[in-house]
Amino acid sequence: MSPRKKEASDRRKLRLGRNGFMVAVDLGGTKMLAAAMNDRFEILASSRKRTLPKTGPVTGEVVFGRICDVIEAAIHESGRPRSGLAGIGIGSPGPLDPYGGVLIDLANLPFKNFPIVERLRKKFKTEVILENDVNAGLYGEYCFGSARDAHTVLGVFPGTGIGGAIIFDGRIHHGASGAAGEFGHMIYDPGGPLCGCGRRGCIEAFSGRPAIAGRLAALAVRGDAPHLAADAGSDVRSIRSGAIARAIGAGDKRVEAVVREEAFRIGIVAASAVNLISPDRLVLGGGLVEEMGKLFVDEVTRAVAQYGLPFLVKPLKVVKADLGDDAVVMGAASLVAERIAGRARKG
Amino acid sequence: MSPRKKEASDRRKLRLGRNGFMVAVDLGGTKMLAAAMNDRFEILASSRKRTLPKTGPVTGEVVFGRICDVIEAAIHESGRPRSGLAGIGIGSPGPLDPYGGVLIDLANLPFKNFPIVERLRKKFKTEVILENDVNAGLYGEYCFGSARDAHTVLGVFPGTGIGGAIIFDGRIHHGASGAAGEFGHMIYDPGGPLCGCGRRGCIEAFSGRPAIAGRLAALAVRGDAPHLAADAGSDVRSIRSGAIARAIGAGDKRVEAVVREEAFRIGIVAASAVNLISPDRLVLGGGLVEEMGKLFVDEVTRAVAQYGLPFLVKPLKVVKADLGDDAVVMGAASLVAERIAGRARKG
Repeated sequence: MSPRKKEASDRRKLRLGRNGFMVAVDLGGTKMLAAAMNDRFEILASSRKRTLPKTGPVTGEVVFGRICDVIEAAIHESGRPRSGLAGIGIGSPGPLDPYGGVLIDLANLPFKNFPIVERLRKKFKTEVILENDVNAGLYGEYCFGSARDAHTVLGVFPGTGIGGAIIFDGRIHHGASGAAGEFGHMIYDPGGPLCGCGRRGCIEAFSGRPAIAGRLAALAVRGDAPHLAADAGSDVRSIRSGAIARAIGAGDKRVEAVVREEAFRIGIVAASAVNLISPDRLVLGGGLVEEMGKLFVDEVTRAVAQYGLPFLVKPLKVVKADLGDDAVVMGAASLVAERIAGRARKG
Repeated sequence: MSPRKKEASDRRKLRLGRNGFMVAVDLGGTKMLAAAMNDRFEILASSRKRTLPKTGPVTGEVVFGRICDVIEAAIHESGRPRSGLAGIGIGSPGPLDPYGGVLIDLANLPFKNFPIVERLRKKFKTEVILENDVNAGLYGEYCFGSARDAHTVLGVFPGTGIGGAIIFDGRIHHGASGAAGEFGHMIYDPGGPLCGCGRRGCIEAFSGRPAIAGRLAALAVRGDAPHLAADAGSDVRSIRSGAIARAIGAGDKRVEAVVREEAFRIGIVAASAVNLISPDRLVLGGGLVEEMGKLFVDEVTRAVAQYGLPFLVKPLKVVKADLGDDAVVMGAASLVAERIAGRARKG
C-alpha cells in the first residue's frame, strides 16, 4: 500500500467499542435510505422511507422530521443502544455547503439555506457530516468499491443530470466553491441545445437521460424502436433505464445506436477531463450505467482512447461502479469515521 | 493566513546560512536561463545561453554540457562559494517524469529518456528536482505572483501550444501519469481541425498561436489587416505576439476581432475546466497574454461568466500572470527549497 493510500485507510480506522455504531443517510428526491453501521462498515440495519409525505404540507421542517424518523428507525432496527451512536453522515443532492453543513437550494426538496448539520447535531447529540451525494457515492467506491486501489479518480454518473465527482490523493475535491465536479456542465458544443442550467451545449443537455429518452421517443413514434414502443410507449417519462436496456436486449438496433452515440459523447467530454486531471480510474455509475454497464464502459473507453493523450490514457482504467445503492451510505459513513478518528487523535 | 496556505509557505522556509544558495534553470527550446538565488528567493545572478550549439553535433550530451555551463556561470556570477550550493531546480518542457527525474521525449530538444536529475546530482553533488516548465511557472505565480493568495489554481498559457497546469491546496497536481494539466488538448470540437497531437478539435488546434497567426495571415493576404501586413507580412512564422499587439494598437479591427474570438474560445474551454475543478484563480500567461493581457483577461472572463455555473464562477478571479520570464525559475527554486526543508525536518 502506498503511503497516501495507507494514510487514507488509517483515517477510517475506528474503535467504537462493542456498542458503537454510525448512521449514514442517502437523501434522495423521492426516497431516503438510512443505514446503521459498525466500525467495520458492516450494515447492521437499514431503513427506507419516501422523502416527501403523501399528504399534508411539504416544508423543510416536515422533511427534516422524516429524516429524523428514518435515522431513528435504523437505530432501532440495529438493536444497539442509542448511547452508542458515534456519528451521522448525510449524502444529499446539492448545491450544499459541506463546510458549513447547509443545504443551499435543492431542486426537488423544500430546503433553502437549511442548517441540517446543526439541526441533527442538536437532536442526536453527535458528530454530523454533510456531503454532496455524488461525492459521497464516489468516495464509497474509492473506500470499498471500484476505485479502491486508485489515487486520482473521476466519477461520471449519467442520470437526469450527469453528476460528477473527483478524488485527489484520497480526498474529495471540493474546490473553491465547495461544489467542484460539475461534469454535466462541461461544454460539449457552445452552440448546442439549452441546458437545464440555462446555458447552452453542456454535455448533460445532450446525453442526460431526458435528452436520450427524447431521442428514443422520436424513434418509437416513427416506428424505429418497436420493442421500446411496446414496452414503454413514447412518453419520455416512461422511457427509463430498464426499459431502454430491455429494448436493446430485444433487438431494437436504433435504440442501441442512439445510446452508444450518447455514451461515446460522454466519453469525449471525459477525455477532456482526463487530459486535464489525469486520473488513474474513471468510475461510471448511475441508472443508465447500472442497466447498460458494458455498453457505457466500452463506448467511454473507446472515446477516451480516441481523444485522450496516450501518456495520460495509459495509467487509466474505465470501470463500472460496483456498490450500487449502497455507495452513498458507504461513502458518508467513511467520512463520519474519518471525522471521528481525526477528533480522537487530536483529543 | 489559512492553515494550508501557511503549510505551503512553511515548506519553503529555508536557512541556508550566509553562503548558501540555490540555482534554478528554465530550459527552453531556444534559450535557457539559470538563476542563482538566496534563501529569500532573491536573484543573486543569472546567466543565459542558447540551448542548442551553433555548430557541431546536437546530441543530448552536448546540450547537457551546455546546461552544466549555464549553471556554472550563474554560480560564478553569484560570487558564492560552490560549497554553498544547496540544490538545483530544472523547469523543462515535457513530457518528463518528475518523480524519476527523467526527460522522456522532448519535441525540440535531443533528449530521450535522459536521466537529467541523476546526471546533475552526480556532477554537482547536490539535491536536484525536475518539473514541467508550465507547472514550475504556475507554481512561481502561486508562491510569489498572481496566485499568491489562492488555493485551487488553473493556469492557461497560450503559445505555440496551449500549456496548462493545476495547483490543488498548495501542491502541483501531477495526476496518475505525472503529466496532468494538458489544457491545450481539451476538446473544443470533436470534429474540428487536426491538432499537432494527431487528434481532432483540441483547443490548441483552434487557438494556439500558429492557428491564430494562420487566420491573421489570411486577413493580411486579402487586405484586411494593413498594419499587420506592413509590419509582419503574411508568413505565419513572422506573425508573432508583439506584431499582433502592434497591429491591434494601430487599428487593425479585423485582427482584433480574430484574436478576441480565439481568446473567447479559450475561455469556453476554461469554463469547462472551472465547472470541473472549481478554482479560485485562473492565471493566464504566455507570449500572447504578455502582449495583450487585458484583451485575454476580458474575453476569458466573459466566456467563463457565460459558460460557467454561477456558484462556481463566484469565487473565481481571472488574472494575468505577473512574474514574466522569472516565473519558471521562481517556481523551480521554490520546489528545491521545499525539498531541502523537507529533508532537513526529517534528518
